[in-house]
Amino acid sequence: MMIKKPRILVTNDDGILSPGIKVLVDIVQKIGDVVVVAPDKPQSGQGHAITLEYPLRLKKVNLFKGIESYECSGTPVDCVKLAKNIILKNLDIDLCVSGINHGSNASINIIYSGTMSAAMEASLEGINSIGFSYLDYSFKADFTNCIPYIEAIIYQVLQKCILPSKLINVNIPVGEITGIKVCRQAKGVWVEEFKEAIDPRGQPYYWMTGKFDYHDRASDNDLKALENGYISIVPSHHDLTHYPSIESLDYLEKIEL
Amino acid sequence: MMIKKPRILVTNDDGILSPGIKVLVDIVQKIGDVVVVAPDKPQSGQGHAITLEYPLRLKKVNLFKGIESYECSGTPVDCVKLAKNIILKNLDIDLCVSGINHGSNASINIIYSGTMSAAMEASLEGINSIGFSYLDYSFKADFTNCIPYIEAIIYQVLQKCILPSKLINVNIPVGEITGIKVCRQAKGVWVEEFKEAIDPRGQPYYWMTGKFDYHDRASDNDLKALENGYISIVPSHHDLTHYPSIESLDYLEKIEL
Repeated sequence: MMIKKPRILVTNDDGILSPGIKVLVDIVQKIGDVVVVAPDKPQSGQGHAITLEYPLRLKKVNLFKGIESYECSGTPVDCVKLAKNIILKNLDIDLCVSGINHGSNASINIIYSGTMSAAMEASLEGINSIGFSYLDYSFKADFTNCIPYIEAIIYQVLQKCILPSKLINVNIPVGEITGIKVCRQAKGVWVEEFKEAIDPRGQPYYWMTGKFDYHDRASDNDLKALENGYISIVPSHHDLTHYPSIESLDYLEKIEL
Repeated sequence: MMIKKPRILVTNDDGILSPGIKVLVDIVQKIGDVVVVAPDKPQSGQGHAITLEYPLRLKKVNLFKGIESYECSGTPVDCVKLAKNIILKNLDIDLCVSGINHGSNASINIIYSGTMSAAMEASLEGINSIGFSYLDYSFKADFTNCIPYIEAIIYQVLQKCILPSKLINVNIPVGEITGIKVCRQAKGVWVEEFKEAIDPRGQPYYWMTGKFDYHDRASDNDLKALENGYISIVPSHHDLTHYPSIESLDYLEKIEL
């Protein structure tokens, strides 16, 4: 009996040269037929940006032994669109995995994250999609502890095929892993600080930095799970409607001119 | 009796020179104390992108008579962050309005839209925020029909102050306006087509284009409201958790190594 191997698309936002994507490719190449399409440079914080005003470049590269791989000049979402339309020519994709991101995409970071936006783009196309992030920002991060869990999550998702919203946001804590919690996105906010300075030509500039502020002390959210050493898994989706508000906005329907 | 005028932040994604933002500034300057911070160039499709790898520039401009205005080198979300932190130095902002976008941000377009992402960024900060979009892509669009409705919506939101999710996505149809519907985001998907060509230096490139495919025939969504001549208002938010899925992902919590 021949069983068809699943077709798996790999992408990220840290760029095709980042250590995190290498770890992810090593995991999935044992599981399925893999195609890699990832940005040719770091694209952190690109959110769901797409490239409309410029042409996109796609270059075949030989970075992962035996794996069809391309670097793309665009955003993570562009990578998914090009993978689907140009490289795979609308062949079925069984799974899209994005990451492993260097740094957290828990809480509201999902909104800014190119890693998660790439996975969301695939999920919009009906493809089961997983974004993986490891809470160590360093490019020298040691992913050893993550690997068996990532492998197990991918196996389970492919086998059970239960992802009603087609998308999960997986964040992995540093250190010993207690287990896995399926939970909701924590409330939080970035408190920006802009470094103000003068450039060599005498012009002022502002450089964004900031601290994440976490004010959601309930026990059922992803940040709390991570604090307690759990891998957090948040089922996510692209319907941004705030359903509980619909009725309370009646007053806007009553506007008459 | 002196009543404090509301402080209103105006931004967009089509750039500070676009006709749509001029119309919006003209409307809100009758209502409140206005500050404009908008991109110095078109930023359509920038989604929730932020600029981390480069410095940002901010330049005071004199485009709107008597209104404090700045053009910014970054994305629409960068504009909101700079407005809040640098220009208004964390003063209270009573309302953020974004647009008027040239073209629809209904259905899933909210995800790709810089206009809506800017409004969402303000809502993340607890500011009542409204994104306005007009379903005419032309820079020669005639906004006359929109103006009284936009004015009335802004007045109502400022007066009633009922926006539980802090964010609404307002889309305005072309032609005669039947009324206003508060509704949910329609399901839909972009079907991309990439124009493949060879550049003058002999290298291949891909240029993204596409058609929007709308397969949500229910009557309670924004695209249907717009088809029927209504202004659609979708209360929106940044919690991407798909709550109904949490229980069905039990199988992932059971993973043991």
